[in-house]
Amino acid sequence: MEKLLVFGHQNPDTDAITSAISFAYYLNQIGVEAEAVALGELSDETAYALNHFHTEAPRVIKTASNEVKAVALVDHNEFQQSVSDISSLEVQYVIDHHRIDNFHTANPVYYRAEPVGCTNTVIYKMFKEKGIEIPAELAGLMLSAIISDTLLFKSPTCTDEDVVVAKALAKIADVDPNEYGLAMLKAGTNLDDISSEE
Amino acid sequence: MEKLLVFGHQNPDTDAITSAISFAYYLNQIGVEAEAVALGELSDETAYALNHFHTEAPRVIKTASNEVKAVALVDHNEFQQSVSDISSLEVQYVIDHHRIDNFHTANPVYYRAEPVGCTNTVIYKMFKEKGIEIPAELAGLMLSAIISDTLLFKSPTCTDEDVVVAKALAKIADVDPNEYGLAMLKAGTNLDDISSEE
Ligand SMILES: [Mn+2]
Ligand SMILES: [Mn+2]
Ligand SMILES: [Mn+2]
Ligand SMILES: [Mn+2]
Repeated sequence: MEKLLVFGHQNPDTDAITSAISFAYYLNQIGVEAEAVALGELSDETAYALNHFHTEAPRVIKTASNEVKAVALVDHNEFQQSVSDISSLEVQYVIDHHRIDNFHTANPVYYRAEPVGCTNTVIYKMFKEKGIEIPAELAGLMLSAIISDTLLFKSPTCTDEDVVVAKALAKIADVDPNEYGLAMLKAGTNLDDISSEE
Repeated sequence: MEKLLVFGHQNPDTDAITSAISFAYYLNQIGVEAEAVALGELSDETAYALNHFHTEAPRVIKTASNEVKAVALVDHNEFQQSVSDISSLEVQYVIDHHRIDNFHTANPVYYRAEPVGCTNTVIYKMFKEKGIEIPAELAGLMLSAIISDTLLFKSPTCTDEDVVVAKALAKIADVDPNEYGLAMLKAGTNLDDISSEE
Protein backbone atom coordinates (compact mmCIF):
# COMPACT_ATOMS: atom_id res chain seq x y z
CA MET A 1 0.00 0.00 0.00
CA GLU A 2 1.26 3.44 -0.87
CA LYS A 3 1.70 6.26 1.58
CA LEU A 4 -1.33 8.24 2.70
CA LEU A 5 -1.50 11.89 3.64
CA VAL A 6 -3.76 12.54 6.64
CA PHE A 7 -5.29 15.98 7.19
CA GLY A 8 -8.10 17.90 8.85
CA HIS A 9 -10.11 20.75 7.37
CA GLN A 10 -8.97 24.13 6.02
CA ASN A 11 -8.48 26.87 8.62
CA PRO A 12 -7.46 24.09 11.00
CA ASP A 13 -8.48 24.14 14.64
CA THR A 14 -6.79 22.07 17.35
CA ASP A 15 -8.87 18.97 16.58
CA ALA A 16 -8.09 19.17 12.84
CA ILE A 17 -4.34 19.32 13.51
CA THR A 18 -4.08 16.83 16.36
CA SER A 19 -6.50 14.26 14.94
CA ALA A 20 -4.31 14.18 11.82
CA ILE A 21 -1.34 13.49 14.11
CA SER A 22 -3.15 10.87 16.19
CA PHE A 23 -4.74 9.10 13.23
CA ALA A 24 -1.44 9.03 11.28
CA TYR A 25 0.11 7.46 14.39
CA TYR A 26 -2.73 4.91 14.50
CA LEU A 27 -2.24 4.05 10.82
CA ASN A 28 1.50 3.64 11.31
CA GLN A 29 0.84 1.29 14.22
CA ILE A 30 -1.43 -0.93 12.08
CA GLY A 31 1.19 -1.00 9.33
CA VAL A 32 -0.08 1.72 6.99
CA GLU A 33 2.43 4.36 5.91
CA ALA A 34 0.90 7.75 6.66
CA GLU A 35 1.97 11.34 7.32
CA ALA A 36 0.00 14.01 9.11
CA VAL A 37 -0.12 17.32 7.22
CA ALA A 38 -2.16 20.51 7.57
CA LEU A 39 -4.27 22.63 5.21
CA GLY A 40 -3.27 25.87 6.92
CA GLU A 41 -1.21 27.50 9.64
CA LEU A 42 -1.65 26.74 13.33
CA SER A 43 -3.82 28.88 15.56
CA ASP A 44 -2.18 30.25 18.71
CA GLU A 45 -4.15 27.71 20.74
CA THR A 46 -2.89 24.78 18.66
CA ALA A 47 0.67 26.13 18.74
CA TYR A 48 0.43 26.24 22.54
CA ALA A 49 -0.72 22.59 22.66
CA LEU A 50 1.98 21.34 20.28
CA ASN A 51 4.65 23.27 22.17
CA HIS A 52 3.43 22.02 25.56
CA PHE A 53 3.56 18.41 24.38
CA HIS A 54 6.86 18.76 22.46
CA THR A 55 5.43 17.97 19.04
CA GLU A 56 6.43 19.53 15.74
CA ALA A 57 3.78 21.21 13.64
CA PRO A 58 2.71 19.19 10.57
CA ARG A 59 3.88 20.76 7.33
CA VAL A 60 1.30 22.73 5.37
CA ILE A 61 0.23 21.47 1.94
CA LYS A 62 -1.73 23.22 -0.81
CA THR A 63 -2.46 20.10 -2.89
CA ALA A 64 -2.04 16.38 -2.24
CA SER A 65 -2.25 14.68 -5.65
CA ASN A 66 1.29 15.83 -6.50
CA GLU A 67 2.51 13.61 -3.62
CA VAL A 68 0.09 10.73 -3.14
CA LYS A 69 -2.84 8.91 -4.73
CA ALA A 70 -4.84 8.37 -1.55
CA VAL A 71 -5.67 10.31 1.59
CA ALA A 72 -7.32 10.06 4.99
CA LEU A 73 -9.67 12.85 6.09
CA VAL A 74 -10.07 13.69 9.76
CA ASP A 75 -12.43 16.14 11.47
CA HIS A 76 -14.27 16.85 8.21
CA ASN A 77 -15.75 15.17 5.18
CA GLU A 78 -17.27 17.91 3.05
CA PHE A 79 -15.16 18.35 -0.07
CA GLN A 80 -15.35 22.15 0.03
CA GLN A 81 -13.61 22.06 3.46
CA SER A 82 -10.90 19.71 2.21
CA VAL A 83 -7.75 19.94 0.14
CA SER A 84 -8.25 21.82 -3.13
CA ASP A 85 -7.61 18.74 -5.32
CA ILE A 86 -9.76 16.33 -3.27
CA SER A 87 -11.68 15.24 -6.37
CA SER A 88 -8.55 13.75 -7.94
CA LEU A 89 -7.67 11.71 -4.84
CA GLU A 90 -8.95 8.44 -3.42
CA VAL A 91 -10.32 8.87 0.09
CA GLN A 92 -9.44 5.67 1.97
CA TYR A 93 -10.35 6.71 5.51
CA VAL A 94 -12.59 9.29 7.15
CA ILE A 95 -12.69 9.78 10.92
CA ASP A 96 -15.09 12.52 11.93
CA HIS A 97 -17.85 13.80 14.18
CA HIS A 98 -19.79 16.08 11.81
CA ARG A 99 -22.83 15.71 9.57
CA ILE A 100 -22.06 14.10 6.21
CA ASP A 101 -22.55 16.28 3.16
CA ASN A 102 -20.97 16.81 -0.23
CA PHE A 103 -18.97 13.61 0.23
CA HIS A 104 -18.76 10.56 -2.01
CA THR A 105 -16.29 7.87 -2.98
CA ALA A 106 -15.85 5.65 -6.00
CA ASN A 107 -14.86 2.64 -3.89
CA PRO A 108 -15.62 1.13 -0.50
CA VAL A 109 -14.05 3.23 2.23
CA TYR A 110 -13.28 3.05 5.93
CA TYR A 111 -15.61 5.66 7.40
CA ARG A 112 -16.03 6.17 11.09
CA ALA A 113 -18.06 9.00 12.48
CA GLU A 114 -19.84 9.29 15.78
CA PRO A 115 -22.05 12.08 17.13
CA VAL A 116 -19.57 13.06 19.85
CA GLY A 117 -17.82 16.33 20.63
CA CYS A 118 -14.42 15.66 19.07
CA THR A 119 -12.74 13.52 16.43
CA ASN A 120 -10.07 12.50 18.92
CA THR A 121 -12.75 10.87 21.09
CA VAL A 122 -13.45 8.50 18.19
CA ILE A 123 -9.72 7.91 17.58
CA TYR A 124 -9.20 7.14 21.28
CA LYS A 125 -11.79 4.34 20.98
CA MET A 126 -10.01 2.99 17.90
CA PHE A 127 -6.71 2.86 19.82
CA LYS A 128 -8.47 0.98 22.65
CA GLU A 129 -10.13 -1.47 20.27
CA LYS A 130 -6.79 -2.39 18.72
CA GLY A 131 -4.98 -2.41 22.07
CA ILE A 132 -2.54 0.27 20.88
CA GLU A 133 -0.87 2.20 23.68
CA ILE A 134 -1.07 5.99 23.41
CA PRO A 135 2.24 7.81 24.13
CA ALA A 136 1.93 10.50 26.84
CA GLU A 137 2.59 13.42 24.50
CA LEU A 138 0.09 12.19 21.94
CA ALA A 139 -2.47 11.74 24.73
CA GLY A 140 -1.85 15.38 25.66
CA LEU A 141 -2.55 16.51 22.11
CA MET A 142 -5.73 14.44 21.91
CA LEU A 143 -6.88 15.88 25.24
CA SER A 144 -6.17 19.38 23.92
CA ALA A 145 -8.55 18.73 21.02
CA ILE A 146 -11.38 17.57 23.26
CA ILE A 147 -10.92 20.61 25.49
CA SER A 148 -10.86 22.86 22.43
CA ASP A 149 -13.91 21.37 20.67
CA THR A 150 -15.99 21.20 23.87
CA LEU A 151 -14.75 24.48 25.39
CA LEU A 152 -13.63 22.60 28.51
CA PHE A 153 -16.66 20.25 28.48
CA LYS A 154 -19.12 23.16 28.41
CA SER A 155 -20.33 23.08 24.80
CA PRO A 156 -23.74 21.55 23.96
CA THR A 157 -21.93 19.07 21.66
CA CYS A 158 -19.96 17.60 24.55
CA THR A 159 -21.06 14.04 25.41
CA ASP A 160 -20.43 11.81 28.41
CA GLU A 161 -18.01 9.87 26.23
CA ASP A 162 -15.90 12.96 25.56
CA VAL A 163 -15.60 13.58 29.30
CA VAL A 164 -14.66 9.98 30.07
CA VAL A 165 -12.09 9.88 27.25
CA ALA A 166 -10.62 13.26 28.26
CA LYS A 167 -10.11 12.02 31.81
CA ALA A 168 -8.35 8.89 30.57
CA LEU A 169 -6.14 10.98 28.26
CA ALA A 170 -5.32 13.48 31.02
CA LYS A 171 -4.12 10.60 33.17
CA ILE A 172 -1.85 9.29 30.41
CA ALA A 173 -0.59 12.81 29.68
CA ASP A 174 -0.19 13.51 33.40
CA VAL A 175 -1.87 16.94 33.34
CA ASP A 176 -4.83 18.40 35.17
CA PRO A 177 -7.44 18.87 32.41
CA ASN A 178 -8.98 22.00 33.90
CA GLU A 179 -5.73 23.77 34.72
CA TYR A 180 -4.04 22.81 31.45
CA GLY A 181 -7.24 23.38 29.47
CA LEU A 182 -7.79 26.89 30.75
CA ALA A 183 -4.16 27.79 29.98
CA MET A 184 -4.51 26.39 26.47
CA LEU A 185 -7.80 28.17 25.76
CA LYS A 186 -6.35 31.41 27.11
CA ALA A 187 -3.37 31.04 24.78
CA GLY A 188 -5.76 30.86 21.87
CA THR A 189 -8.69 32.71 20.49
CA ASN A 190 -11.16 31.58 23.12
CA LEU A 191 -9.81 34.01 25.72
CA ASP A 192 -12.88 36.22 25.67
CA ASP A 193 -15.36 33.36 26.00
CA ILE A 194 -13.54 31.94 28.95
CA SER A 195 -12.64 35.07 30.89
CA SER A 196 -16.27 36.19 30.84
CA GLU A 197 -17.13 33.05 32.81
CA GLU A 198 -14.48 33.53 35.47
CA MET B 1 -35.04 8.38 22.42
CA GLU B 2 -37.76 7.29 20.07
CA LYS B 3 -37.89 3.99 18.27
CA LEU B 4 -35.77 3.46 15.16
CA LEU B 5 -36.56 1.33 12.16
CA VAL B 6 -33.52 -0.55 10.83
CA PHE B 7 -33.41 -1.74 7.23
CA GLY B 8 -31.17 -2.77 4.37
CA HIS B 9 -31.53 -1.84 0.70
CA GLN B 10 -34.43 -2.46 -1.69
CA ASN B 11 -34.49 -5.89 -3.36
CA PRO B 12 -32.92 -7.20 -0.17
CA ASP B 13 -30.24 -9.88 -0.24
CA THR B 14 -29.30 -12.01 2.76
CA ASP B 15 -26.91 -9.36 4.15
CA ALA B 16 -29.55 -6.61 3.88
CA ILE B 17 -32.10 -8.68 5.83
CA THR B 18 -29.81 -10.22 8.44
CA SER B 19 -27.73 -7.10 9.11
CA ALA B 20 -31.01 -5.29 9.91
CA ILE B 21 -31.78 -8.11 12.37
CA SER B 22 -28.28 -8.15 13.90
CA PHE B 23 -27.95 -4.36 14.13
CA ALA B 24 -31.44 -3.98 15.64
CA TYR B 25 -30.37 -6.58 18.22
CA TYR B 26 -27.17 -4.59 18.86
CA LEU B 27 -29.16 -1.37 19.34
CA ASN B 28 -31.55 -3.08 21.74
CA GLN B 29 -28.58 -4.34 23.75
CA ILE B 30 -27.16 -0.82 24.10
CA GLY B 31 -30.57 0.50 25.16
CA VAL B 32 -31.90 1.90 21.89
CA GLU B 33 -35.39 0.80 20.86
CA ALA B 34 -35.16 -0.51 17.31
CA GLU B 35 -37.02 -2.88 14.99
CA ALA B 36 -35.62 -4.64 11.94
CA VAL B 37 -37.81 -4.29 8.87
CA ALA B 38 -37.34 -5.02 5.16
CA LEU B 39 -37.81 -3.05 1.96
CA GLY B 40 -38.92 -6.10 -0.02
CA GLU B 41 -39.68 -9.81 0.09
CA LEU B 42 -37.10 -12.44 1.01
CA SER B 43 -35.11 -14.28 -1.61
CA ASP B 44 -35.23 -18.09 -1.44
CA GLU B 45 -31.69 -18.03 -0.08
CA THR B 46 -32.59 -15.67 2.74
CA ALA B 47 -35.76 -17.63 3.52
CA TYR B 48 -33.61 -20.76 3.82
CA ALA B 49 -31.26 -19.02 6.28
CA LEU B 50 -34.07 -17.58 8.43
CA ASN B 51 -35.83 -20.95 8.49
CA HIS B 52 -32.62 -22.81 9.36
CA PHE B 53 -31.95 -20.49 12.27
CA HIS B 54 -35.58 -20.31 13.46
CA THR B 55 -36.00 -16.57 12.89
CA GLU B 56 -39.12 -14.82 11.66
CA ALA B 57 -38.88 -12.67 8.55
CA PRO B 58 -38.91 -8.90 9.26
CA ARG B 59 -42.12 -7.25 8.11
CA VAL B 60 -41.97 -5.37 4.81
CA ILE B 61 -42.48 -1.61 4.82
CA LYS B 62 -43.13 0.78 1.94
CA THR B 63 -42.48 4.01 3.88
CA ALA B 64 -41.01 4.75 7.30
CA SER B 65 -42.00 8.34 8.13
CA ASN B 66 -45.56 7.25 8.93
CA GLU B 67 -44.12 5.21 11.83
CA VAL B 68 -40.89 6.85 13.02
CA LYS B 69 -38.82 10.02 12.79
CA ALA B 70 -35.41 8.34 12.60
CA VAL B 71 -33.88 5.28 10.98
CA ALA B 72 -30.74 3.18 10.79
CA LEU B 73 -29.48 2.08 7.37
CA VAL B 74 -27.57 -1.16 6.97
CA ASP B 75 -25.83 -2.62 3.91
CA HIS B 76 -26.44 0.55 1.89
CA ASN B 77 -26.27 4.32 2.10
CA GLU B 78 -27.32 5.64 -1.31
CA PHE B 79 -30.74 7.25 -0.98
CA GLN B 80 -32.02 5.76 -4.24
CA GLN B 81 -31.47 2.26 -2.78
CA SER B 82 -33.26 3.16 0.45
CA VAL B 83 -36.83 3.60 1.63
CA SER B 84 -38.91 5.81 -0.67
CA ASP B 85 -39.35 8.57 1.94
CA ILE B 86 -35.72 8.61 3.12
CA SER B 87 -35.49 12.37 2.56
CA SER B 88 -38.08 13.07 5.26
CA LEU B 89 -36.30 10.91 7.86
CA GLU B 90 -33.33 11.47 10.12
CA VAL B 91 -30.61 8.89 9.53
CA GLN B 92 -29.03 8.21 12.93
CA TYR B 93 -26.88 5.19 12.07
CA VAL B 94 -25.33 3.70 8.96
CA ILE B 95 -23.46 0.38 9.02
CA ASP B 96 -22.17 -0.57 5.60
CA HIS B 97 -19.40 -1.89 3.37
CA HIS B 98 -20.06 -0.03 0.13
CA ARG B 99 -18.82 3.16 -1.47
CA ILE B 100 -20.55 6.30 -0.21
CA ASP B 101 -22.63 8.21 -2.73
CA ASN B 102 -25.84 10.23 -2.82
CA PHE B 103 -25.87 10.31 0.99
CA HIS B 104 -26.01 13.25 3.34
CA THR B 105 -27.33 14.16 6.76
CA ALA B 106 -28.41 17.38 8.42
CA ASN B 107 -26.87 16.39 11.77
CA PRO B 108 -23.91 14.43 13.10
CA VAL B 109 -24.46 10.72 12.56
CA TYR B 110 -23.02 7.39 13.65
CA TYR B 111 -21.51 6.06 10.42
CA ARG B 112 -19.43 2.94 10.30
CA ALA B 113 -18.26 1.47 7.03
CA GLU B 114 -15.28 -0.72 6.31
CA PRO B 115 -13.99 -2.05 3.00
CA VAL B 116 -14.80 -5.67 3.88
CA GLY B 117 -16.98 -8.27 2.18
CA CYS B 118 -20.10 -8.02 4.31
CA THR B 119 -21.96 -5.62 6.63
CA ASN B 120 -22.25 -8.36 9.24
CA THR B 121 -18.45 -8.53 9.49
CA VAL B 122 -18.53 -4.91 10.71
CA ILE B 123 -21.43 -5.61 13.08
CA TYR B 124 -19.58 -8.62 14.52
CA LYS B 125 -16.69 -6.29 15.45
CA MET B 126 -19.13 -3.88 17.09
CA PHE B 127 -20.55 -6.71 19.23
CA LYS B 128 -17.00 -7.67 20.25
CA GLU B 129 -16.05 -4.08 21.08
CA LYS B 130 -19.04 -3.74 23.41
CA GLY B 131 -18.61 -7.24 24.86
CA ILE B 132 -22.13 -8.22 23.74
CA GLU B 133 -22.66 -11.95 23.40
CA ILE B 134 -24.14 -13.12 20.09
CA PRO B 135 -26.94 -15.69 20.42
CA ALA B 136 -26.34 -18.89 18.38
CA GLU B 137 -29.21 -18.30 15.96
CA LEU B 138 -28.19 -14.71 15.30
CA ALA B 139 -24.62 -15.88 14.71
CA GLY B 140 -26.00 -18.32 12.12
CA LEU B 141 -27.79 -15.49 10.32
CA MET B 142 -24.68 -13.30 10.33
CA LEU B 143 -22.63 -16.20 8.98
CA SER B 144 -25.24 -16.71 6.25
CA ALA B 145 -24.73 -13.11 5.13
CA ILE B 146 -20.95 -13.45 4.92
CA ILE B 147 -21.31 -16.67 2.93
CA SER B 148 -23.85 -14.98 0.65
CA ASP B 149 -21.89 -11.77 0.04
CA THR B 150 -18.56 -13.57 -0.48
CA LEU B 151 -19.98 -16.59 -2.34
CA LEU B 152 -18.44 -18.91 0.23
CA PHE B 153 -15.25 -16.82 0.58
CA LYS B 154 -14.56 -16.92 -3.17
CA SER B 155 -15.54 -13.38 -4.22
CA PRO B 156 -12.82 -10.77 -4.86
CA THR B 157 -14.42 -8.60 -2.16
CA CYS B 158 -13.80 -11.22 0.53
CA THR B 159 -11.13 -10.14 3.04
CA ASP B 160 -9.15 -12.05 5.64
CA GLU B 161 -11.36 -10.41 8.25
CA ASP B 162 -14.52 -11.86 6.69
CA VAL B 163 -13.01 -15.34 6.85
CA VAL B 164 -11.92 -14.97 10.48
CA VAL B 165 -15.30 -13.56 11.53
CA ALA B 166 -17.19 -16.27 9.62
CA LYS B 167 -15.21 -18.97 11.42
CA ALA B 168 -15.98 -17.40 14.79
CA LEU B 169 -19.68 -17.13 13.91
CA ALA B 170 -19.82 -20.73 12.63
CA LYS B 171 -18.47 -21.87 15.96
CA ILE B 172 -21.13 -19.94 17.89
CA ALA B 173 -23.85 -21.18 15.51
CA ASP B 174 -22.44 -24.71 15.64
CA VAL B 175 -22.54 -25.32 11.89
CA ASP B 176 -19.91 -26.30 9.34
CA PRO B 177 -19.60 -23.15 7.18
CA ASN B 178 -18.87 -24.99 3.96
CA GLU B 179 -21.56 -27.61 4.31
CA TYR B 180 -24.20 -25.17 5.54
CA GLY B 181 -23.07 -22.49 3.12
CA LEU B 182 -23.35 -24.71 0.08
CA ALA B 183 -26.83 -25.82 1.13
CA MET B 184 -27.87 -22.20 1.64
CA LEU B 185 -26.48 -21.01 -1.69
CA LYS B 186 -28.13 -23.95 -3.44
CA ALA B 187 -31.46 -23.02 -1.87
CA GLY B 188 -31.13 -19.58 -3.39
CA THR B 189 -30.45 -18.00 -6.70
CA ASN B 190 -26.75 -18.84 -6.72
CA LEU B 191 -27.37 -22.45 -7.67
CA ASP B 192 -25.96 -22.11 -11.17
CA ASP B 193 -22.82 -20.27 -10.08
CA ILE B 194 -22.01 -22.90 -7.50
CA SER B 195 -22.90 -26.09 -9.31
CA SER B 196 -20.62 -25.10 -12.20
CA GLU B 197 -17.70 -25.18 -9.78
CA GLU B 198 -18.47 -28.60 -8.37
MN1 LIG C 1 -12.54 21.12 13.60
MN1 LIG D 1 -13.62 18.50 15.76
MN1 LIG E 1 -26.55 -6.26 0.00
MN1 LIG F 1 -23.57 -6.65 1.91
